[in-house]
Amino acid sequence: MGAEPAPLREVPRRVARPRADQARQVADVLRQQINAGTYAKALPTEQDLTTEFAVSRNTVRDALALLKEEGLIDRAPKVGTQVAQRKYDHGLDALLGLKETLRGHGEVHNEVRAALLVTPPPAVARRLHLNPGEQAVYIERLRYLGDLPLSLDLTYLVPDIGEELLTRDLVSNDLFALIEQISGGPLGSADLALEAITADPHSAATLQMPEGAALLLLERLTKLDDGRPVDLEYIRMRGDRITMRGSLIRQPDPNSWELT
Amino acid sequence: MGAEPAPLREVPRRVARPRADQARQVADVLRQQINAGTYAKALPTEQDLTTEFAVSRNTVRDALALLKEEGLIDRAPKVGTQVAQRKYDHGLDALLGLKETLRGHGEVHNEVRAALLVTPPPAVARRLHLNPGEQAVYIERLRYLGDLPLSLDLTYLVPDIGEELLTRDLVSNDLFALIEQISGGPLGSADLALEAITADPHSAATLQMPEGAALLLLERLTKLDDGRPVDLEYIRMRGDRITMRGSLIRQPDPNSWELT
Repeated sequence: MGAEPAPLREVPRRVARPRADQARQVADVLRQQINAGTYAKALPTEQDLTTEFAVSRNTVRDALALLKEEGLIDRAPKVGTQVAQRKYDHGLDALLGLKETLRGHGEVHNEVRAALLVTPPPAVARRLHLNPGEQAVYIERLRYLGDLPLSLDLTYLVPDIGEELLTRDLVSNDLFALIEQISGGPLGSADLALEAITADPHSAATLQMPEGAALLLLERLTKLDDGRPVDLEYIRMRGDRITMRGSLIRQPDPNSWELT
Repeated sequence: MGAEPAPLREVPRRVARPRADQARQVADVLRQQINAGTYAKALPTEQDLTTEFAVSRNTVRDALALLKEEGLIDRAPKVGTQVAQRKYDHGLDALLGLKETLRGHGEVHNEVRAALLVTPPPAVARRLHLNPGEQAVYIERLRYLGDLPLSLDLTYLVPDIGEELLTRDLVSNDLFALIEQISGGPLGSADLALEAITADPHSAATLQMPEGAALLLLERLTKLDDGRPVDLEYIRMRGDRITMRGSLIRQPDPNSWELT
């Protein structure tokens, strides 16, 4: 490196870092490895991790405690450290339903908790371009992969598509596939908003997760090819079960990126 | 609607729904309204919300309790219900740094907690295409908007770009802007993974948020135009401060979507 200009003088370098900072650093790399399926079942021993990360054994233990707290690993004397559960990847990139996304991991089915005509609140009516007082269809589903609840989906649909949807098999189909069947054309676009929230007691019980655990909340307004909004969803995904993934590729216009 | 086929018989319709389910439904719509800036400061009265959502006053109260628990609103006798804080939108769509994203909302600055050469763990070395034992640059920053901590960013960089970065002003610049300056060309692509986790005690204290509050964890591997990975980041964003937003537009190939 060349001569040190001014900003660098402010920066601490090669100083001893607090153990909690080091443990977080180790935990982040291990979390990514677990999610990527690097460890079939058992993680390396504490001793091996100490060497791999060049940190103290206590730092390794703290890192593993963080991942245990997140529900990613189990630890027991003699048995060592085991992967508790793999997370499933959900593509940010395509308007795929959960069933289509998890093809190959198991059977997705839906417990239909509500499916009815409602007069939506004005805020929902506006987003679906409904007239004041016009009815919408409300569908609420708890979505399972096998026996595992993955997400709780609250959905408002425009009546012309929604009423027909009510006559279809909502237990074993993705709504996107049904909407495309009914509308006779492909979906056109979607606006997404992703947040992290903690699970309130009732949502936690419904999703069979600990109260206060983290949820990915996806709000998605989906439009037909002609731009008409037809489907407004509020989707709570279990934070310990789902990772949203995507790739961005820069387009010729430097401010435009394609998600692939 | 036509004749009822078999699946519909399984579906409960127009049944009385548990109050907790109704409260969640109301809270989701109100949360979206708060995030969209619909309410300058005060929310409508309980009585008005009761009318707007066609639910009981107790359901409205339960919905507001959920949003208060998330830190989105404050409630007090006489004062009523007030928006506690707006969330900031962070684009999923472009490889913008936080400073560039929040232009117009205030000044972003970074507390540089570490900036040093490290021998990265093998898992990190592999993702950055480094040889075993080759050094990387590690930078850790707590990022503020004004006095408000928004995110804690752990970053590993390839040495040829990272060492030059260490000589730059890391307090007031986005890393993306600096990487483009140093590499002399635009970034090419990025792989994203988004998860929701709860804040461990030390991360919570660092980000000045309650222990156990929800974090959006973004893992992002960024590559130059030629495909070479240069920057691996683990970003903890406060769930109560950041919403990730994007729009998907279907491309001519029905399985390809552009994020805009």
